[in-house]
Amino acid sequence: MFPLNQWYVAGFAWELQDKPLARTFLNHKVVLFRTGNGEVAALEDRCCHRSVPLSCGALDEGGIRCGYHGLLYGADGQCIEIPGQVKIPGKARVRAYRVAVRNQVIWIWMGEQADSAPDGPPPEIAAHDNPRYKFKGGAFHYDAPYQLIHDNLLDLSHVGYVHAKTIGGNPKVHMEAPTNVSSDNHDVRVVRWMKSSQPPATYSAAWPFKGLIDRWQEIDFHVNHLNIFTGAVDANTDALDDPRRGGFHMRGFHGITPETDTTSHYFWTMASSSHPDMPDNLELVYQQTAMTFEEDRVIIEAQYRNMCQFDGAPQIDIHVDAGANRARRIINILSQPAGHPA
Amino acid sequence: MFPLNQWYVAGFAWELQDKPLARTFLNHKVVLFRTGNGEVAALEDRCCHRSVPLSCGALDEGGIRCGYHGLLYGADGQCIEIPGQVKIPGKARVRAYRVAVRNQVIWIWMGEQADSAPDGPPPEIAAHDNPRYKFKGGAFHYDAPYQLIHDNLLDLSHVGYVHAKTIGGNPKVHMEAPTNVSSDNHDVRVVRWMKSSQPPATYSAAWPFKGLIDRWQEIDFHVNHLNIFTGAVDANTDALDDPRRGGFHMRGFHGITPETDTTSHYFWTMASSSHPDMPDNLELVYQQTAMTFEEDRVIIEAQYRNMCQFDGAPQIDIHVDAGANRARRIINILSQPAGHPA
Amino acid sequence: MFPLNQWYVAGFAWELQDKPLARTFLNHKVVLFRTGNGEVAALEDRCCHRSVPLSCGALDEGGIRCGYHGLLYGADGQCIEIPGQVKIPGKARVRAYRVAVRNQVIWIWMGEQADSAPDGPPPEIAAHDNPRYKFKGGAFHYDAPYQLIHDNLLDLSHVGYVHAKTIGGNPKVHMEAPTNVSSDNHDVRVVRWMKSSQPPATYSAAWPFKGLIDRWQEIDFHVNHLNIFTGAVDANTDALDDPRRGGFHMRGFHGITPETDTTSHYFWTMASSSHPDMPDNLELVYQQTAMTFEEDRVIIEAQYRNMCQFDGAPQIDIHVDAGANRARRIINILSQPAGHPA
Repeated sequence: MFPLNQWYVAGFAWELQDKPLARTFLNHKVVLFRTGNGEVAALEDRCCHRSVPLSCGALDEGGIRCGYHGLLYGADGQCIEIPGQVKIPGKARVRAYRVAVRNQVIWIWMGEQADSAPDGPPPEIAAHDNPRYKFKGGAFHYDAPYQLIHDNLLDLSHVGYVHAKTIGGNPKVHMEAPTNVSSDNHDVRVVRWMKSSQPPATYSAAWPFKGLIDRWQEIDFHVNHLNIFTGAVDANTDALDDPRRGGFHMRGFHGITPETDTTSHYFWTMASSSHPDMPDNLELVYQQTAMTFEEDRVIIEAQYRNMCQFDGAPQIDIHVDAGANRARRIINILSQPAGHPA
Repeated sequence: MFPLNQWYVAGFAWELQDKPLARTFLNHKVVLFRTGNGEVAALEDRCCHRSVPLSCGALDEGGIRCGYHGLLYGADGQCIEIPGQVKIPGKARVRAYRVAVRNQVIWIWMGEQADSAPDGPPPEIAAHDNPRYKFKGGAFHYDAPYQLIHDNLLDLSHVGYVHAKTIGGNPKVHMEAPTNVSSDNHDVRVVRWMKSSQPPATYSAAWPFKGLIDRWQEIDFHVNHLNIFTGAVDANTDALDDPRRGGFHMRGFHGITPETDTTSHYFWTMASSSHPDMPDNLELVYQQTAMTFEEDRVIIEAQYRNMCQFDGAPQIDIHVDAGANRARRIINILSQPAGHPA
Repeated sequence: MFPLNQWYVAGFAWELQDKPLARTFLNHKVVLFRTGNGEVAALEDRCCHRSVPLSCGALDEGGIRCGYHGLLYGADGQCIEIPGQVKIPGKARVRAYRVAVRNQVIWIWMGEQADSAPDGPPPEIAAHDNPRYKFKGGAFHYDAPYQLIHDNLLDLSHVGYVHAKTIGGNPKVHMEAPTNVSSDNHDVRVVRWMKSSQPPATYSAAWPFKGLIDRWQEIDFHVNHLNIFTGAVDANTDALDDPRRGGFHMRGFHGITPETDTTSHYFWTMASSSHPDMPDNLELVYQQTAMTFEEDRVIIEAQYRNMCQFDGAPQIDIHVDAGANRARRIINILSQPAGHPA
């Protein structure tokens, strides 16, 4: 179940150099590549002649050339050369997908119908172009459906149990933190504060806190990505709702894109604020974030395997599920075909 | 096809220390663990909140705690703590299974209905607490249904072909040995004698035989395990039906437990008598037994793959199948649901 | 879809020594072995007693003996010994397949009905017994149906794109080469000439050409194998249709045998002519041919995975497909059951 009329994250601009890149999005096999003029294109990953993946071919002036018999395709999917043959049949073409690059994120639009067009550009990821932050990113592949990753990110109460070695902290403090869940149209916002708490390992390593900290987690869910801003200041030194507050800030971008019904792409970046005494803390934050996300992957894949094996077993809700449940309702509404409301 | 109202071997007492152990029995995923007071418990391996395996969690005073959001379960399957939440819903519980430990074997009772109760304790495995024998054990996982392992163990005529390097011997002597098959209620007994035969490699290595030997195999099949007593004395020195006879004795315990319809657990121990001149023969017997069982696993898994590929191809019976066929009839009867006789 | 009443390549004579060999042909699991008198036999790979693969057994005087309980089978599939049992039931037998060895190729006949008999010997592969050539061979396993390999071999226009490092050459020259396709009953012949072209890497390494070459490709498709003769002479020195022309000759034998509906065996040999100055060029030609075939395997398996994922997506034909399409029509006709024409 996917909302089809959405921009989805397809990758990062730096991934596309001189080779085609094969990826599957929402059950569609796609080849991503740069055309001769440097623009990003996305085509169905199948030559219309004998079905060899175009991603097995090579970039060529003007497009991508099949590696079996040399058919050349432009960015619009039209075959523009069949070596040794003068006439090119009109049906010698493959599907082309809309793509856009913004703040170094490549977005793709699959569309509910062939002519479904986006009504605007993809989202801005401001932290990627904010001089106050440096950032670094990566990608995980999940053998689990994408909504289980949403659940995980919208409920950060799990960090005390799952991420004890990095960004965790006292599990009970997390589970008992005051949490505010709000929503607006198709977005969900979850804000949690943990005042006067012990700094977790990653925080202590990345910032010279003096003792206890006032800690915040601000999760902004959008259908195609989440922005999660977390951080802390020395306890009782700044108001947690003051946008100009100081301290240690982590700004996470989480592009969760369905690969298939049961597998997912997780594209992410992490930006962090620099302390004058710790100019290199981004690398540390990046490494520990990657370790943290790997811990999530292990537990979410185990969860999904178990859900398959206990097919249809009932689940109970607890207090931490409010944000995730709202997001699931939004996805449910947006996944209905146009004219067929839920 | 499994008889459900039976004790089955779930493992050995020494396997459970400070971590939960995930195993599947009769298609049910189970987590085994020790409670704070050292008793063994078995629960459905699925947190009732978001379905994460409880075996990914940790032992805690009073039970097992889920590794995702910290729900704590007691040995009876009831959730006894939801961190950050006062009220615990009554349906916050998972299925608990009856377990019992006897002679260092952990037994589990799955039960035909939720309230099916055993009418007695699990079987005694006397060799595990007999001072005359030392024993050592292990476990194999089989990609084959459990009854193929019964077939193998009830027909030791195969040892000449399959185990030529260890406990085999002249294949024809095995195939032609006088064999007595008897049964009593749900048990089958197969006794074979091979008088004045050459000692096989394992026997010669473990006992100072003088020449030819009189050899016995006594197989006692029960629905949930087999005891197989084998051994030999110097030829013409002792009566093979004298329970006090001397010589080299191997006492094998074979706990064959269905994992799924098509896979099996094989828990085993081997005890052997010690000769004053060869005090360390148990380690040799144990190593060669493990090698022998691995030979069986290879052939039985090949057999099962072939049965799947030649789906439904007819098989013929030969003289060695009498014991195995009786065991199959017993399993067939005991697998019928109560009130629905075969 | 296979024509059943055909000889198919089962392997090479040198593969069968003192052990049985398990292979699947046209969805049938077969064990190949040599009998005591050195003849090759092929049986259903399943003991009729408990379904263990006979290929897990051992060769014995007179036949093959099952590795589980020692049943012995002759080359005609009849069980001729059950150790420990006097009477051998008449139904104690397995299916036997017709086999023939010719020019070191082992051929097997599966047959549409149990009594379908070949109306002649298997094809002659003359290059294997031609003193003018030395040859060497091997086998590839393909996760792709056999007709995709036919397509590949009947259309050598791909070599410019797929085999640039070995037997390729300028891709456009290949795509534009004059090509003659003819057919006769169930055979297809494709002949292509590339005059005054640059020698590809393998040719230059194996033969002392002086400059440009006149190059030929002669592909003879038969339902159960292809002979492909390729080579070149110095440009304008010999007529390309003169059977006595000199130069560098490669004579490829390609035995493509369906393993299952979706997998294939590719048995091949390559013979080459020797130049007095380069007596060891066969090893070079053999190595580069193996590398070339591996390149084909990679692209054909990617093609087949893509065909499965884009199930039923339409394909367009281009000019190079004429020979392959004729071969597909022949296979289609020959695959109809007798009395049920297409």
